[in-house]
Formats: sequence, C-alpha cells, structure tokens
Amino acid sequence: MFEFRVLAQDGAARRGLIRTDHGDLETPAFFAVATRAALKGVDPATARSAGSGSLICNAYHLAIQPGPELIEAAGGLHRFMGWEGVLATDSGGFQVFSLRHGQVADELKGRRRLPPAEGDPIDAVRVDEEGADFRSYLDGRRHRFTPENNMALQRSLGADLLFCLDECTPFHVPPEYTRAATERNARWARRCLEAFDSLAMGERQALYGIVHGGVYPELRRFSAGAMSELGFAGFGIGDCLGETKTDWYGLVELVCGLVPAGKPRHLLGVGEPDDLVEGALRGIDTFDCAMPTRIARHGHALHFGLPRCRLDLKKAERRGEDRPIEEGCPCSACSRFGRAYLHHLFRAGEMLGISLAAEHNLAFTNRLMRRIREAISDGRLEELRREIGN
Amino acid sequence: MFEFRVLAQDGAARRGLIRTDHGDLETPAFFAVATRAALKGVDPATARSAGSGSLICNAYHLAIQPGPELIEAAGGLHRFMGWEGVLATDSGGFQVFSLRHGQVADELKGRRRLPPAEGDPIDAVRVDEEGADFRSYLDGRRHRFTPENNMALQRSLGADLLFCLDECTPFHVPPEYTRAATERNARWARRCLEAFDSLAMGERQALYGIVHGGVYPELRRFSAGAMSELGFAGFGIGDCLGETKTDWYGLVELVCGLVPAGKPRHLLGVGEPDDLVEGALRGIDTFDCAMPTRIARHGHALHFGLPRCRLDLKKAERRGEDRPIEEGCPCSACSRFGRAYLHHLFRAGEMLGISLAAEHNLAFTNRLMRRIREAISDGRLEELRREIGN
Repeated sequence: MFEFRVLAQDGAARRGLIRTDHGDLETPAFFAVATRAALKGVDPATARSAGSGSLICNAYHLAIQPGPELIEAAGGLHRFMGWEGVLATDSGGFQVFSLRHGQVADELKGRRRLPPAEGDPIDAVRVDEEGADFRSYLDGRRHRFTPENNMALQRSLGADLLFCLDECTPFHVPPEYTRAATERNARWARRCLEAFDSLAMGERQALYGIVHGGVYPELRRFSAGAMSELGFAGFGIGDCLGETKTDWYGLVELVCGLVPAGKPRHLLGVGEPDDLVEGALRGIDTFDCAMPTRIARHGHALHFGLPRCRLDLKKAERRGEDRPIEEGCPCSACSRFGRAYLHHLFRAGEMLGISLAAEHNLAFTNRLMRRIREAISDGRLEELRREIGN
Repeated sequence: MFEFRVLAQDGAARRGLIRTDHGDLETPAFFAVATRAALKGVDPATARSAGSGSLICNAYHLAIQPGPELIEAAGGLHRFMGWEGVLATDSGGFQVFSLRHGQVADELKGRRRLPPAEGDPIDAVRVDEEGADFRSYLDGRRHRFTPENNMALQRSLGADLLFCLDECTPFHVPPEYTRAATERNARWARRCLEAFDSLAMGERQALYGIVHGGVYPELRRFSAGAMSELGFAGFGIGDCLGETKTDWYGLVELVCGLVPAGKPRHLLGVGEPDDLVEGALRGIDTFDCAMPTRIARHGHALHFGLPRCRLDLKKAERRGEDRPIEEGCPCSACSRFGRAYLHHLFRAGEMLGISLAAEHNLAFTNRLMRRIREAISDGRLEELRREIGN
C-alpha cells in the first residue's frame, strides 16, 4: 500500500500524509540516512524515540555487502535491520556515477575531471544505453546495473519506497553531457517502471521517478514532463542543483510546478535546517540527508540561532558548560547530559559522544519538520523561514 | 550511606546486598568499566536496561581529562555522566604503575623489563615513600599522586565506593620488589584511611582497602592482616594473581578467609564467565572487568556453551545466520537482530555493531550474576560451576 494525501496548504507548501504497509508518515518529513542498513552510531530504537519515522538505505552498498539474497532470506530489509517504520532505498546510481565523475569533495576542491569517453575500458564505470558497469569497492569485481536488475534488487530489499536508477551528473560536466544523461535517464525511468510493473512490485512498494536536468531549466522542464507522463507514485528531484542556493531554489520551484500536484515530491540529499524550510516553502514533501549523523562524528551539534545552526562540541569553551546542547530540546541526550560531558567524550575519543550528538541532531531535524508541518497548517511558514534563516 | 549485608550462604559463597545513596546492589554483582566516565559504545540507559546496576571509573584518567574540578563543578561524577546507579572509582594506581612496569600486554608477550631504580629521573613514574610522580599521557605534564591527594581527588569525583591508592606489581618483578611494594601499600592504605576520615568523606562514600602480595601466600597473609586491622568498608583483591587460574583460585580463597566476614570483597579486573563463578564460590562479592565491552569492539559476543563463552560475529559462518546472538537472551540486541545483521555491521564497519555486541555482553554478564545469586540461595553454585566450566 502507498497513499499520499495533501491535508493543508500554505502557498506552494503542503502538509500531507504518506501511508505505507509500515506505517504513516506526516509530511514534510525527513528520511534519516542509513546507507548500509544502519544509522551511523545510532540505534534504530533511539532514532525512533528521537522522532525519526523514515529511513533511506542505499541499494548499491547493500548489493555489494551483504548482498540482496541474504537480506531477502532474512525477510527483507525492515526485518534485517530491525526497522518498523517507513523505509526507502535509493537505487545507488549516485554512488555508481560518483566513481565516474569524482566525489562531490573533488568538485568542491576544484579537482575537476572530464568524464571519460563511453566504454573507456580503464574507467571504474562504463555506461551505455543498456546500463552501467562498475567495479566493487570491496573486492574489485565487476557489477552491472540496468534499470531492470536494479528494480529486481530493490524488490529483494523490500523497502516501501524506491527510486529509479539514474545517472546523476555533477556541475562540472559540459551541458551536452547533462542533456544526453537527462534523456537517457528518461528512457531508463520508463524501463524501471515497466520492470517494476512486470515484477508486480506495486502491491507493497512505490516507485518514484527522478527529475534530472542539472542547472538547465529547459532540461528540467523536459525531464519533469517525461517523468510526469509515466505513472510514478512520486517524484524525486535529483542531479546537480547548482552552485549557490539561489540556483537551487529556482530549480526546485520550477520542478514542483511541473509535476502532478497530487503526488509526493522528494528532494534528494538536502537536509540543512534552512534548506528544509526553503524546500518545504516550494512544495517539497520529503527530504533525506546524511548531514545530521555525519557532522556528529566531527563533534558538531545542531542548534537553532547559531551560524549554520552548528555548535562545535569540541571547542574549548564547551569545557565547563553545565547546560544541555540545546536548552528545551526534549531528546534523551539533552535531558541527561551537559555540554561539558559531551566535550569530554570527544576529547577522550569515546564513541558515546558521537552517538549522543547524532541522536540530538536527528531529534533537532525531526523537531524542525514538525514545526514546518505546524507552520503550514497555521499559514505561518514564511514566518518560520525568517526565524530560522540567520 | 554504605551498608553490606549477607543474605544467604553456600559454602564460602555468599549472596548479599550493598546499599548506597545511589541505590542498592544485589551481590555477587559485576561493575561494568567506564574508565573515562563512559562505557565504550554503550549508552548508560542501555546498560541499565541490560541489567547493569554498578559502574567503575578511573580516577587517574579523569584527573587528566577532564579534571576533578570540572566534575565537581558539574555536581559530581554521577550527574556528569548521567549515571543514577552505584558508582565506584579506582584510584588509578594500576594505570600509573603500568607506565613503570610496562603493560600487561608486554608481560604476555615476554617483553619483560626490570623496574628502574627508585627516583630514576628518566622514568615515566617515580615512586618514593611519599607517593608517585608520573607524566600525563596527554600533554607530558608531571602529576603527583599521594594517598592524601588521591583521596581528595576521589572525593571530588564523588563515587559511592573508592579504592585506596596502591602500587600494583606485575608477575615479572623479583619477590623482594613485591614485598617492598606490599609493605608500602599497607602504609599508604593507612594514610588513605586517615585522609578519608579527615576529609569527612564517610558520610557519602565508602573506602575499600586492597589486599596485595602478588603470588606469595606469605605476603598475602601479611597484607590481608594489615588491611583487616584498619576500618575499611570493604576489601579489594589486587596485584598480580599468578600465571594460571589455579594460582589465582588459591590466593583468592586464602584472602577471603582472612578478611572480616561481614565486609564485602571485590576482585579487581576479573570478568570471564567461569572466573565469575569461581570467584563467587570462594567468597567474592563484586567484580569489575573491561572485557565485555572490549571484546565487543573486536566483534566477539559472549555465549554460554561455547569455548571461552565466545562467539565470533565476524566469522563467515555468521553471514546467513537468521537467529539472535544467543537464543533466549532477553537483551534488546538479541530480541531485535539476527547474527547475519551483526555480521554485516562488522563487515561494513558500522559502529552500531560494537554497541549491540557490547550491550549483549553486559546483559550476558549481568544475567550470569543473577544466576550466581540464585544458585547461592538454592545451594547449587557448584552445579552452576560444572554447567559453565566447559
């Protein structure tokens, strides 16, 4: 079962409800990232207490380790990883193609490399019309992803919500490359949907198409149109969204205006507090991002009213602070421990520091999503935007 | 407040109750090791759910980071680390002197070194009658431990149960060295108790003397006698206990027969399942050991009926095992996850694997302590010993 209903609107923003076999999800909602079937440093029961109702795993990583047969034999991903809430899987296209295009970090650091010619035998990833070949980062063995076998993979995993296989193009590639990829992604999306239907996955799972087109409005229009014609349960917004937030906002606004209003929209890989509000304002229903657990590993906690909403727990000024990470936060880390203790844990190299900061960061993000939902019901989302955006 | 009552006996073994300001502890009991005010990889609430009612921290490590002033300012160690149960602190003597004598690992690997002459300026630790000088492993600064300042340190930390400052001699030193250290430890114990009394710590805290003497029955008799004459609330058994378990058993039996019967006895650094039973059989009331959380970091889980009670979660045969770590274990790891998932977490390098294995290992150990207590009440501890000892 998969249903989506819009319950309230505030401009382009909407409050809604996604219903699945594994529970309901009030939207706008945040999917915490459990790439390898685990939240980094957080017990799923703790995440649940911190307000997380939905997780997203990565089909590529799980295909390589432990392998889909094993997860299927264990009764599917929900049971394997002890998660009773809503669960999504990303196709893994992003990870496969990051082998080809270099990591986002390379891009940020100016280590740009042009994409190799198609079929280049020494490249880690080879793409053709049929699919993509790549080498496992674990044992070097070759794997092949096609729209068809990726759907079969995601069926084995058994998440509630799946994404089509796509090539995600980075900012530094030439426009012609992005155009070709966007067009091929549309053809792959159709093949994904056909495979999804022929595997009769629709009873228990829902498939989202992904709108591509990089930073080019014309390609975004093309992709949104092509995806809208197909019978997807919802729409992801993927691919490169530009270098500045302004690019990003405009493209998301554009896409949300083009896809069918009655279907949910997921913005892939976005989770900064201000971005969650900006996305919701433009009609995004769900988000996912590894940031809350990733920054916890570096000793950073989310906190309203600070620059970029970040509190550095490792800084010397935390050393004697006898107050919680964030005053008024009801998470179990804030209700039991002071900043001085968290600071000590990071100084002493204790894993517990990472776990507590990650728990708080998830609780913070889930609390923000609830504020966004309430603001939409009250017609006050613009107000919340001004409050958060500092 | 500190009280100890014997409730039932089975030969030399006894079942009892320790009462403190922070709750009661049924004995025989296990103190989980939270060296730096944190259980490695386990939230204190999780440890509590897994049956842990008592933790032990290390005054030496906490003196260096974050420092006693800070913990005192935070309202003491209980509040600082969010622990509402019984809490002990070890003096840190063991850690200070391991700088002098080399680590236990050095000893096991045959890297024996003779203790340097007293006052040797290039040594990391200098001992004299007054106390011990050592360098911080963090910043190289010199610190000095004396019986008096160690008691003041442990008062600042505020645990319920403290241990005297002692020099812990390893197996490889000459007997004359052990004799001199044992005699000095007796003089230091008297000074600890005087400092403890003059600081009026007895209202809220209890001080344990530690019986030394290495593997020499004569020195053990001397030390047990000297400690028994002083008014300690309980007695630790420390120092080197020999190379084989048989040495160990005899020495513990000897010491338990010499210290006052109405006072609790703590065996320092012992936690293997069979050793817990063997210790209880000889009259030990409490134990502490880092093993349950340490082996979890290496992917090992405790399991009755296997060699050394160890299950290696990393082994390939775990890969597809769709059953809990240990059938019938009520811990939250066993009730939610299969071995295949734990195996996957260790393969994927996910911290969650360590946390879940550590939680199980604490639950296993606490469950064993309860079986020991029940066996004592039922006069069946010998039976349990035969069952465990495989």
